[in-house]
Amino acid sequence: MVEELSQAQYDTVYNFLSLVIASQLFTALFIVMSLRRVLPKYRAALIISATVCGIAAYHYFRIFDSFREAYVTDAVGGQGVYTLAEGVSFNVAYRYVDWLLTVPLLLLEAIAVLALARKTQTSLLVRLIPASALMIVLGYPGEISDDVTTKMIWGALSTIPFAYILYVLFVELGRILAGAPREIAVTVRNLRLLLLGTWGVYPIAYLFPVLGIEGSDAFVAREVGYSVADILAKALFALVIFRIARLKSAYDDP
Amino acid sequence: MVEELSQAQYDTVYNFLSLVIASQLFTALFIVMSLRRVLPKYRAALIISATVCGIAAYHYFRIFDSFREAYVTDAVGGQGVYTLAEGVSFNVAYRYVDWLLTVPLLLLEAIAVLALARKTQTSLLVRLIPASALMIVLGYPGEISDDVTTKMIWGALSTIPFAYILYVLFVELGRILAGAPREIAVTVRNLRLLLLGTWGVYPIAYLFPVLGIEGSDAFVAREVGYSVADILAKALFALVIFRIARLKSAYDDP
Amino acid sequence: MVEELSQAQYDTVYNFLSLVIASQLFTALFIVMSLRRVLPKYRAALIISATVCGIAAYHYFRIFDSFREAYVTDAVGGQGVYTLAEGVSFNVAYRYVDWLLTVPLLLLEAIAVLALARKTQTSLLVRLIPASALMIVLGYPGEISDDVTTKMIWGALSTIPFAYILYVLFVELGRILAGAPREIAVTVRNLRLLLLGTWGVYPIAYLFPVLGIEGSDAFVAREVGYSVADILAKALFALVIFRIARLKSAYDDP
Amino acid sequence: MVEELSQAQYDTVYNFLSLVIASQLFTALFIVMSLRRVLPKYRAALIISATVCGIAAYHYFRIFDSFREAYVTDAVGGQGVYTLAEGVSFNVAYRYVDWLLTVPLLLLEAIAVLALARKTQTSLLVRLIPASALMIVLGYPGEISDDVTTKMIWGALSTIPFAYILYVLFVELGRILAGAPREIAVTVRNLRLLLLGTWGVYPIAYLFPVLGIEGSDAFVAREVGYSVADILAKALFALVIFRIARLKSAYDDP
Amino acid sequence: MVEELSQAQYDTVYNFLSLVIASQLFTALFIVMSLRRVLPKYRAALIISATVCGIAAYHYFRIFDSFREAYVTDAVGGQGVYTLAEGVSFNVAYRYVDWLLTVPLLLLEAIAVLALARKTQTSLLVRLIPASALMIVLGYPGEISDDVTTKMIWGALSTIPFAYILYVLFVELGRILAGAPREIAVTVRNLRLLLLGTWGVYPIAYLFPVLGIEGSDAFVAREVGYSVADILAKALFALVIFRIARLKSAYDDP
Ligand SMILES: CC1=C(/C=C/C(C)=C/C=C/C(C)=C/C=O)C(C)(C)CCC1
Ligand SMILES: CC1=C(/C=C/C(C)=C/C=C/C(C)=C/C=O)C(C)(C)CCC1
Ligand SMILES: CC1=C(/C=C/C(C)=C/C=C/C(C)=C/C=O)C(C)(C)CCC1
Ligand SMILES: CC1=C(/C=C/C(C)=C/C=C/C(C)=C/C=O)C(C)(C)CCC1
Ligand SMILES: CC1=C(/C=C/C(C)=C/C=C/C(C)=C/C=O)C(C)(C)CCC1
Ligand code: NA
Ligand code: NA
Ligand code: NA
Ligand code: NA
Ligand code: NA
Ligand code: NA
Ligand code: NA
Ligand code: NA
Ligand code: NA
Ligand code: NA
Repeated sequence: MVEELSQAQYDTVYNFLSLVIASQLFTALFIVMSLRRVLPKYRAALIISATVCGIAAYHYFRIFDSFREAYVTDAVGGQGVYTLAEGVSFNVAYRYVDWLLTVPLLLLEAIAVLALARKTQTSLLVRLIPASALMIVLGYPGEISDDVTTKMIWGALSTIPFAYILYVLFVELGRILAGAPREIAVTVRNLRLLLLGTWGVYPIAYLFPVLGIEGSDAFVAREVGYSVADILAKALFALVIFRIARLKSAYDDP
Repeated sequence: MVEELSQAQYDTVYNFLSLVIASQLFTALFIVMSLRRVLPKYRAALIISATVCGIAAYHYFRIFDSFREAYVTDAVGGQGVYTLAEGVSFNVAYRYVDWLLTVPLLLLEAIAVLALARKTQTSLLVRLIPASALMIVLGYPGEISDDVTTKMIWGALSTIPFAYILYVLFVELGRILAGAPREIAVTVRNLRLLLLGTWGVYPIAYLFPVLGIEGSDAFVAREVGYSVADILAKALFALVIFRIARLKSAYDDP
Repeated sequence: MVEELSQAQYDTVYNFLSLVIASQLFTALFIVMSLRRVLPKYRAALIISATVCGIAAYHYFRIFDSFREAYVTDAVGGQGVYTLAEGVSFNVAYRYVDWLLTVPLLLLEAIAVLALARKTQTSLLVRLIPASALMIVLGYPGEISDDVTTKMIWGALSTIPFAYILYVLFVELGRILAGAPREIAVTVRNLRLLLLGTWGVYPIAYLFPVLGIEGSDAFVAREVGYSVADILAKALFALVIFRIARLKSAYDDP
Repeated sequence: MVEELSQAQYDTVYNFLSLVIASQLFTALFIVMSLRRVLPKYRAALIISATVCGIAAYHYFRIFDSFREAYVTDAVGGQGVYTLAEGVSFNVAYRYVDWLLTVPLLLLEAIAVLALARKTQTSLLVRLIPASALMIVLGYPGEISDDVTTKMIWGALSTIPFAYILYVLFVELGRILAGAPREIAVTVRNLRLLLLGTWGVYPIAYLFPVLGIEGSDAFVAREVGYSVADILAKALFALVIFRIARLKSAYDDP
Repeated sequence: MVEELSQAQYDTVYNFLSLVIASQLFTALFIVMSLRRVLPKYRAALIISATVCGIAAYHYFRIFDSFREAYVTDAVGGQGVYTLAEGVSFNVAYRYVDWLLTVPLLLLEAIAVLALARKTQTSLLVRLIPASALMIVLGYPGEISDDVTTKMIWGALSTIPFAYILYVLFVELGRILAGAPREIAVTVRNLRLLLLGTWGVYPIAYLFPVLGIEGSDAFVAREVGYSVADILAKALFALVIFRIARLKSAYDDP
């Protein structure tokens, strides 16, 4: 664990964590308030979105408190160097517990919104969900290790199921949708790109401490990276899903 | 009570407890948000589910705080051995208070979902609910004792009503449903297996400290065991009930 | 005030208080979630029930915290004798503030559910509600006194309005309902017995410290007694009212 | 500020503050739960009521905490004299901030419920609301001063807009309603008396410290007075408005 | 950062911050409770309003706590000079994080309420939203600097996008609406003036510490200025939007 943070570093992490709390909490509440503005058949996706953002808000409340307690200073006005406190640690596991719950829900949501045949849905989910769980479980030992090699090995292992998820979404799903109407094909393409663009931030953030050899800048970069990725992959994703549900509702029942 | 935990042990319990909070809380909220997505006649079961998960979330917030306060370290960054603090205990009773409220509700929910004749329902519940209360009350003295023999005796006593519950669900209920339509028979069979599979984890978790002669590994195994069992028996069970209610709603009113 | 509690005594009170929190809070939430499951005309009674249980939950959160802060130990793992802390007291008044708000509401609820003529209702309430307020106000000075004679005198004074309430409910209400249809008569009889059975626990719990001459066992018995009485008179009562409302709803609009 | 409170004085203020929290919070929740029990056109008044009680609950939570922190003792079991703590003050301003928000809302609510012509409404509100704001702003400097003369001067200044409000409500409104149907006239008369009866408590409570020359009894009397007044003027008023809305709803749509 | 505050200064900031919490929180709740009182097509604007006020309430809870912890005294009854505490800072960034989320939402809301053609809407938003984000990001370095020149430079840079926003709203929007019906033209004019009037307070508050050369009066003026501006630009704006939605609903569906 990083032992020292400058005030600017401390404040950066601190403010990003608070930003994530506000983003997730109010996206969840916004979606809940907006439930009735879409047709009943699109509400399942919205309820899942709200749940995902709610779970994230809960974990970021914990992460924020954990960070606050873990790094302390005795400088007047907090204007000094922050060091690790006694008796408490900055609990990195919250993120992984969060992902373990939210990643399968996000995949469920993405698949649900495509409105494929039930059989195709099930066939995709029974492969995507275990793969995503594996990806997260394999990433964790690398995350909490301070050793670069350990980090690399587990990161590489975790990348295998990640690649498999991308394969299923891009190759297999493509095949399934080969003959689909143009409109669905476009939605799929866009959602997939959004997923790739946002999920791809996580492994990059993971790599920062590997490259920076556990310096405090790398720590900050990782925390900011994960925070931004969580806003994009959960809150922004929820708003995109909401937008799609609104448009489809207006289309079905003008 | 266990007096010392390594950092890894402390973190394991800590993270599992937090996982249970998130699982129960958001399952409860998810079910509440989804209430209108099933027909009115299936809402009773969902409301009970949400209540059960809510009660569990409440108790896990308390258990989590109790655990955090009970084991402390003064190592920098929390990277050391955790020992029992002065003035506070890890309150094991929360689990039993929780079960006392939630186990009868779960039985009520399981019976309700079968939609038997009112008379049969009552006849089952007046036997199942007292038996379940007895099971929990008899387990408690063994749980809080550090003595293996005491643990064994109360555990054995608690197993009698447990066995009786299984007998009622598997033998008596079987007889009652002998002539029932296939569809109901299948639902009953599956729910029963789910119940057996998840409730069976509790006595196993109970036994860990008996086998491990109160070592700290046994303590961790018990806490993790109970946590996992509570996720399965409450949150997963709620989602299965929800699934059944959705399918039945779609079937009744397509 | 009791100055010392053994660990078992401390834990008993502690766990009963937590049990009451969970019971009241989730009964309130359960009733709120179930509002739409009864016909509009029965919702008033349910809303009052939920309010009563909510008020109780609020006060038990306070009582619980007050108790926790008031009795402390410095034994490792909390495995020792608990004594009164400096600077804080166990605030007995919360119960009386709670009753002052909830007892009139319970009487209102009980009368409302009988659906008598508006004039009869008013005539009953203008006598029952002031009497109940008097009962509680007169009980308080005895409750906070450590002197047996003082306790006896105020207890006796408080019993006068209590007896009057019972007289109104059993004798007067009987006369009013003399010619009522059998069905109403039965409901009234049962509700009255439930009220007697649950309200009767309070004066008994009040007497424990009188008999036990302020020993710590008497203190524990009183706390447990009030806790159990509050669960019965509020949460259980709410569920009975809910049951009646459900049955009547099914009967009116099958 | 009062520097010392006996235990009985401390407990009296403490318990009244907690009573106000429970009253306001649960009146607000009760009103929210009851919204659908009145016709849509009466909901505006109820929503304002609930908002007023909610705002009051918020401020009383703060006042309660402020009071608790401001007066401390080191007597065992809190059985001693309470004195001002170091570093914190009992923040009297919360009440005035609360009134600044709630008094205009109460006037709005009272006028709204009369269902006058829009023009008359506006004409009344543009005079009542600024007057009420002035009344509160002028009262504040007197409230926080320990000097009797200062208190008297600001109190007298604050009484001018107060008298003006009463003049508008009793004289002007009377003229406006001269030819109104009897039923409205009665409602107006009753609401006005209720307002006078409850609002009149505030200046009386304000005067206690003036008369008592800042003794601790005067402090207690003022706190209890404001607490009781707030229950009457907000929670009781909300319930009266609710009653009127219920009756009118039944009358309009039997 | 300002190092010393008199008690009056401390109390002024303290009470204004608490006032903002209550205003934002209860405006949000009021709007949510009032959702059904406007036609569905106007609910989007209300939901956004409620979200904006909710986000602000969240941040003001944090700002309030941050302020409370950052300035401390050891004077009895808090009647003394407040100085910066050790180990904590008054976190100015909360405001900017808040604005980053709420300013785009406010622009979205203002544009939405005008009900322009979708294409015009999009064309306005793609310019307004990035400009507003830029305005806030450029203001931040000046805000946290104690150096007057730095403050001036960043303030000037931030004013460029601010001016651009005003240009778009006043000049471009005017051109677009040239031929619009009178009614819309009036709404636009009023909303624009409200926006100018309230948003204009922010740069003025920003300037106080520049003029006052970082004295504590300037600090207080800035905090009070931002607080008042936030009440006007969010809570008052929400109520105006609500008023418009009510009137339009009554007009569309009398
Ligand atoms: C490939 C890879 C990773 C991928 C993580 C991902 C893809 C996480 C996605 C999380 C989401 C989408 C959360 C939102 O709820 C790890 C574990 C960092 C370890 C390094 C290798
Ligand atoms: C047989 C047995 C036990 C059984 C416990 C069970 C079966 C608990 C079920 C709890 C549930 C289902 C909770 C969910 O809400 C004990 C008490 C551990 C003691 C040892 C013997
Ligand atoms: C007769 C009597 C008492 C009666 C108390 C009762 C009857 C309380 C009922 C409370 C309820 C029903 C609360 C639920 O909300 C006291 C005050 C203990 C004092 C001793 C004499
Ligand atoms: C005349 C007068 C006063 C009047 C206060 C009033 C009338 C307050 C009403 C408050 C309400 C109704 C709050 C409920 O939300 C003060 C300021 C005490 C100062 C002394 C003179
Ligand atoms: C021009 C200017 C500024 C403008 C700020 C504004 C206009 C903020 C608006 C905030 C709102 C509307 C928040 C409500 O949610 C700054 C950043 C103070 C820096 C100095 C120059
Ligand atoms: Na810190
Ligand atoms: Na840790
Ligand atoms: Na700990
Ligand atoms: Na204990
Ligand atoms: Na304690
Ligand atoms: Na006390
Ligand atoms: Na105190
Ligand atoms: Na102060
Ligand atoms: Na402070
Ligand atoms: Na800081």
